[in-house]
Amino acid sequence: MPAQERTGVWLVGARGSVATTATVGLLALRARVAGPTGCVTELPAFAGVPLPTWDDLVLGGHDIVHTGLEKRAEQLVDAGVFGHAVLTAVRSGLSAVDTEIRDGYHPAAHSGAQADAAARLSADIRAFAERHDLARVVVLNVSSTEAPCPLLPEHENLALLERAMADPARSVLPPSSLSAYAALRAGCPYVEFTPSAGITLPALRQLAEREGLPYAGCDGKTGETLLRTVLAPMFTARALKVRSWSGTNLLGGGDGETLADPVTAGSKLDSKARGLAALLGGQVTAPLHIDNVPDLGETKTAWDNVSFEGFLGARMSLQFTWTGYDSALAAPLILDLARLVTAAHAAGQRGALTELGFFFKDPLGSDEHRFAEQTRRLLDWAATL
Amino acid sequence: MPAQERTGVWLVGARGSVATTATVGLLALRARVAGPTGCVTELPAFAGVPLPTWDDLVLGGHDIVHTGLEKRAEQLVDAGVFGHAVLTAVRSGLSAVDTEIRDGYHPAAHSGAQADAAARLSADIRAFAERHDLARVVVLNVSSTEAPCPLLPEHENLALLERAMADPARSVLPPSSLSAYAALRAGCPYVEFTPSAGITLPALRQLAEREGLPYAGCDGKTGETLLRTVLAPMFTARALKVRSWSGTNLLGGGDGETLADPVTAGSKLDSKARGLAALLGGQVTAPLHIDNVPDLGETKTAWDNVSFEGFLGARMSLQFTWTGYDSALAAPLILDLARLVTAAHAAGQRGALTELGFFFKDPLGSDEHRFAEQTRRLLDWAATL
Amino acid sequence: MPAQERTGVWLVGARGSVATTATVGLLALRARVAGPTGCVTELPAFAGVPLPTWDDLVLGGHDIVHTGLEKRAEQLVDAGVFGHAVLTAVRSGLSAVDTEIRDGYHPAAHSGAQADAAARLSADIRAFAERHDLARVVVLNVSSTEAPCPLLPEHENLALLERAMADPARSVLPPSSLSAYAALRAGCPYVEFTPSAGITLPALRQLAEREGLPYAGCDGKTGETLLRTVLAPMFTARALKVRSWSGTNLLGGGDGETLADPVTAGSKLDSKARGLAALLGGQVTAPLHIDNVPDLGETKTAWDNVSFEGFLGARMSLQFTWTGYDSALAAPLILDLARLVTAAHAAGQRGALTELGFFFKDPLGSDEHRFAEQTRRLLDWAATL
Amino acid sequence: MPAQERTGVWLVGARGSVATTATVGLLALRARVAGPTGCVTELPAFAGVPLPTWDDLVLGGHDIVHTGLEKRAEQLVDAGVFGHAVLTAVRSGLSAVDTEIRDGYHPAAHSGAQADAAARLSADIRAFAERHDLARVVVLNVSSTEAPCPLLPEHENLALLERAMADPARSVLPPSSLSAYAALRAGCPYVEFTPSAGITLPALRQLAEREGLPYAGCDGKTGETLLRTVLAPMFTARALKVRSWSGTNLLGGGDGETLADPVTAGSKLDSKARGLAALLGGQVTAPLHIDNVPDLGETKTAWDNVSFEGFLGARMSLQFTWTGYDSALAAPLILDLARLVTAAHAAGQRGALTELGFFFKDPLGSDEHRFAEQTRRLLDWAATL
Repeated sequence: MPAQERTGVWLVGARGSVATTATVGLLALRARVAGPTGCVTELPAFAGVPLPTWDDLVLGGHDIVHTGLEKRAEQLVDAGVFGHAVLTAVRSGLSAVDTEIRDGYHPAAHSGAQADAAARLSADIRAFAERHDLARVVVLNVSSTEAPCPLLPEHENLALLERAMADPARSVLPPSSLSAYAALRAGCPYVEFTPSAGITLPALRQLAEREGLPYAGCDGKTGETLLRTVLAPMFTARALKVRSWSGTNLLGGGDGETLADPVTAGSKLDSKARGLAALLGGQVTAPLHIDNVPDLGETKTAWDNVSFEGFLGARMSLQFTWTGYDSALAAPLILDLARLVTAAHAAGQRGALTELGFFFKDPLGSDEHRFAEQTRRLLDWAATL
Repeated sequence: MPAQERTGVWLVGARGSVATTATVGLLALRARVAGPTGCVTELPAFAGVPLPTWDDLVLGGHDIVHTGLEKRAEQLVDAGVFGHAVLTAVRSGLSAVDTEIRDGYHPAAHSGAQADAAARLSADIRAFAERHDLARVVVLNVSSTEAPCPLLPEHENLALLERAMADPARSVLPPSSLSAYAALRAGCPYVEFTPSAGITLPALRQLAEREGLPYAGCDGKTGETLLRTVLAPMFTARALKVRSWSGTNLLGGGDGETLADPVTAGSKLDSKARGLAALLGGQVTAPLHIDNVPDLGETKTAWDNVSFEGFLGARMSLQFTWTGYDSALAAPLILDLARLVTAAHAAGQRGALTELGFFFKDPLGSDEHRFAEQTRRLLDWAATL
Repeated sequence: MPAQERTGVWLVGARGSVATTATVGLLALRARVAGPTGCVTELPAFAGVPLPTWDDLVLGGHDIVHTGLEKRAEQLVDAGVFGHAVLTAVRSGLSAVDTEIRDGYHPAAHSGAQADAAARLSADIRAFAERHDLARVVVLNVSSTEAPCPLLPEHENLALLERAMADPARSVLPPSSLSAYAALRAGCPYVEFTPSAGITLPALRQLAEREGLPYAGCDGKTGETLLRTVLAPMFTARALKVRSWSGTNLLGGGDGETLADPVTAGSKLDSKARGLAALLGGQVTAPLHIDNVPDLGETKTAWDNVSFEGFLGARMSLQFTWTGYDSALAAPLILDLARLVTAAHAAGQRGALTELGFFFKDPLGSDEHRFAEQTRRLLDWAATL
Repeated sequence: MPAQERTGVWLVGARGSVATTATVGLLALRARVAGPTGCVTELPAFAGVPLPTWDDLVLGGHDIVHTGLEKRAEQLVDAGVFGHAVLTAVRSGLSAVDTEIRDGYHPAAHSGAQADAAARLSADIRAFAERHDLARVVVLNVSSTEAPCPLLPEHENLALLERAMADPARSVLPPSSLSAYAALRAGCPYVEFTPSAGITLPALRQLAEREGLPYAGCDGKTGETLLRTVLAPMFTARALKVRSWSGTNLLGGGDGETLADPVTAGSKLDSKARGLAALLGGQVTAPLHIDNVPDLGETKTAWDNVSFEGFLGARMSLQFTWTGYDSALAAPLILDLARLVTAAHAAGQRGALTELGFFFKDPLGSDEHRFAEQTRRLLDWAATL
């Protein structure tokens, strides 16, 4: 990547908890009021990789919410995600970023063909790139999880899809996929950080290939699933037989509310179950719940109970409890992904960046879920950039 | 390894819980009344490795206790380690193995020079090998943990050591090291499965090198440390900063009693702390306790509380509780080690088998503690045998 | 209660896990191969209460299952509920009890009017009483939990109910309530140990009052709810504000299977939620799950996460994990209830025995859920018998 | 208690975390920027008890530390104990209280006889009472835990004690007991909120009796022990046999540091063990640890593992994890105790206030540890005031 090039980081859901924390964090890193804890790309192993510096990144995005970033950041301070001193240090920077946020797409607020909406979104991104003289813009979806979307014939064929998008009477794409389409049409790499459909539709993946753009996803791995992908290989390596793996997730905040809807939760639960079966080499009894517990605020608590069998049928168990701030776990990964996808794009990579499975619950283009192996692949790949 | 060769497995502490469970297990595997759950060497990855079959292994050992294997096995049934049906199926086999157990060395019961004691132990092993026409005998120490032993000048020089051993007035070697010496003198590979000194004394390692014998150790990794070596690399890979890692271990059974002695426990605690510091790249606050809780019987429960810091200083935590049968976790690893060390010896390997770090809390000759990496090294190495 | 009187204990679901464990336990207590751990009525506080002795109790019951008690007891030994030695000591007693078990009522297996079915059940109980010259018979329902049953007009009026029961085309009562009806008609006190409708229907409570019979229920309190009724009063007494109380129950065995049906689970979940709201003086966010995890066998594990607020808004938490054998927790309470209801009946008490709320999740005739207060009431009441 | 009377609340350790939180809290309650969550005396049950209002209380105290209350309060905000808004609302009030804090007694800083030191402390309290025209002053010790103090003959006889105190060469009283002596000499009721010796020495209790002063203690019950006194009676009431009760306490902050000293910890551990044995009616295996884990800051985490036996020997377990802010748990109890002891003093009560056992790990003058029973006694007693 040529030195001095500047990269745009366009966040879909730019005023959500994750995006706000990522924005505050980037500004705090630049202001040197915070260290890079949680930023994988700051580890010594990435020292030689041609990544953009924190100063090279320019933030913007779409959102359907109008609460300003400062206000959102204040709420996150109250919730304990970061301290007051950090906010004070970045307050002016936040209001500058806020001016780079444009209205997102919401089906209820939009009239006309989806093609028009997509064109408008693309134009927003292109204008952003020109305004800041950016070498490239990476688009990342960090908006709320959508309900699962049934696969239509149009989702599998780009020509059919674009025909349907031109029809004002149809809403063929869910918002996340419309954002992905708009990003690709604007010539931007795309990262799906939620379990929403986003770029996973075959027609969009074809478009990315055709445009020579890299993409990655989906569903950031920050809690229970991270631990599962760390722990499950231990049972396998030691020939211990997992008999059941039960989990409960307690979430407050917006995510809890969104996922309280059983239909939406289905999307997340499916992605989790696929991973566990892949890791353990077959189905196990694995009841899993996501509960909305508003009083938990920005924290989430996961409890897992693993019942396993050892030598001569001995029955044993492992339980874990993970308590963390969802946004604090996710935000640095957003910055990492922006940097890594930037480098991949600069290096001419295209299609699914399978080596980024390290970051995701449901890695696109890969069935490798074991975290240690994902770590190794990420490092090996980064060394080639 | 030539087909049909038979291998002796000589257990020091042959009537302890681990040895008894391993013995019951081997007999049960042969009788096909139990499957190989917990046996790493039965995983598909080892399919092509020239390991002895279960039928190729012949058991014997030393112990200072005279309670027969059947009686011990009944106690383990009562404690829930394995079922009554398994015991019934292997009862006659147990009494056959019992006839292959000789009196172990105990300083209080021995008069005369340690050299004589060692010679007697060696002779026991050699006679066992001849009696059963064994191609080799692997000696594994699964006796109770000893108190830490101060390093003497004699421990660093084989000539000095042997001179001291010839002196009836001295007890220069702890029992575990005397067993290791006897094993090497009998031409046997040696595995230290406890945190005792065993073969770790430099003079004994010199002896092993000189005799061209492989060895491995020490301190089988079956619970809290196993999880730590699985989980710590996750924090490192994700650039999360562990601030403290507190642990409590509740043990019943003989092991709990032995480790209730703070001096003895020191040996185990030291080995655990070394690993954690190595994994996290530096010291963390890590209070650790081992409590003797007799009513827990053969089970052990470990509770760990990990307090860590994420992006922008967010404070988060992970807790886990591991409850298992110590013997059921350790026993299959004994069989695995016997097989793997047999293959290594047959392949002419000598010195510390660092690729067996997978099995140990304090891997001899290696500072690699990350479990996933140890798994990879083990598999790579096995493929070369 | 006159000395030497013998009391029948008639168990509905006499071959289930709870009943089998209670039966094995009573026989073991008589044979003095087990102590009375878990039997509340053996505490010193009950020393002067005129309770039947273990020898005074005679067991019988209904069940729709034909697997004999010995076979069931063997399964419970395999599952670890009690030891092989206990079974051996009571085996002959078990087969004697088995001969006192009659076919229970199952809607699918029955043709004709429910009145006829009830008459047949009553006759079974009366014949049992005569055969053994019993002063009284206490009927306890320990059969599987039924799906919640909608309240019909007939359930509120005895005359209407009996008219409907006479109609072969109708199945107006769920099986548990049919058993309760039959018990009352046979002149027997009745205990509802499950969350099923049983005696809770107003028409049946009228019948009990009219017949001068005592009854108690419902839903034995043996795990998560027991702890909740112990812990919630602490928060109240200390003026701490519980913000959410989340729970997950993992059950194996028959109970897990039955409760896997969301409709059936509803019955149990409703009863749990009522208690929590009563204890905390209002609604709290309280997501609750019951999962069927067959590999857990006879054990159940409950995990609760309590998020609470203290002084100046400080956010704190309590988590607990309870792991136990459901049958071992419930069975001694069955024996306690049989004894206490016997004494109440002998003392001429009638209607809901509200002082037995100590034993139940959803105490009939009482809204006192605080365990310590229930304990005090039980002891005060017992002293009056 | 006559209306409009003002009561002094004199805190020994007035600049510690607990005292600072209590001070901030009282000011916040008065300013109505916080509600009384955690204040027991604000529960409806205390509505008719003649307690001083929040406005009636005047704060002062001793401390050997000179960091001002504002600075300490800022540290507590950073540690998450309370919010920035609360601090802002009470800042001026804090600096006013700070002017009422006098130098405490520290053996190393004092020369001369302890009698002189005590006279100085008493004079500070008397001057405070006069300055503010207070009807009475309640003295509460919330300073750091002291190392256990051996009982001397002088501690059992007031005359002997005062003779020794007059000797400049001797330091016969630990600081907490010197404070208690000074309080009593100033005519003040005294509350020992720490496990230090304080007023527990027989000579001081004689003095309190002679002066007609009430006192209470010792060692505020806010975490693990609170739960133990809630849970243990459940096992007893259900005739379940606790086999072992193991505990680990992780503490940050000043308390963690103080208790890291095994000798000091001994004081706390002894008090905890006494309670558990009393609750369970005999000794159980109960290993207990207090670890200093500085990164936990003001939070403390306790983990307990209870192994118990049920019917027919079934082995079961309960585990709990309690995570809270020590100061937020203790501070409201300080205000409650100040109010209740005020009312007791006004009502002419003298000697040990055994009905306040509700608040303490080691209730003076009572061996009732069961929390529910303590709650009942407190309410009954309060109703008589």
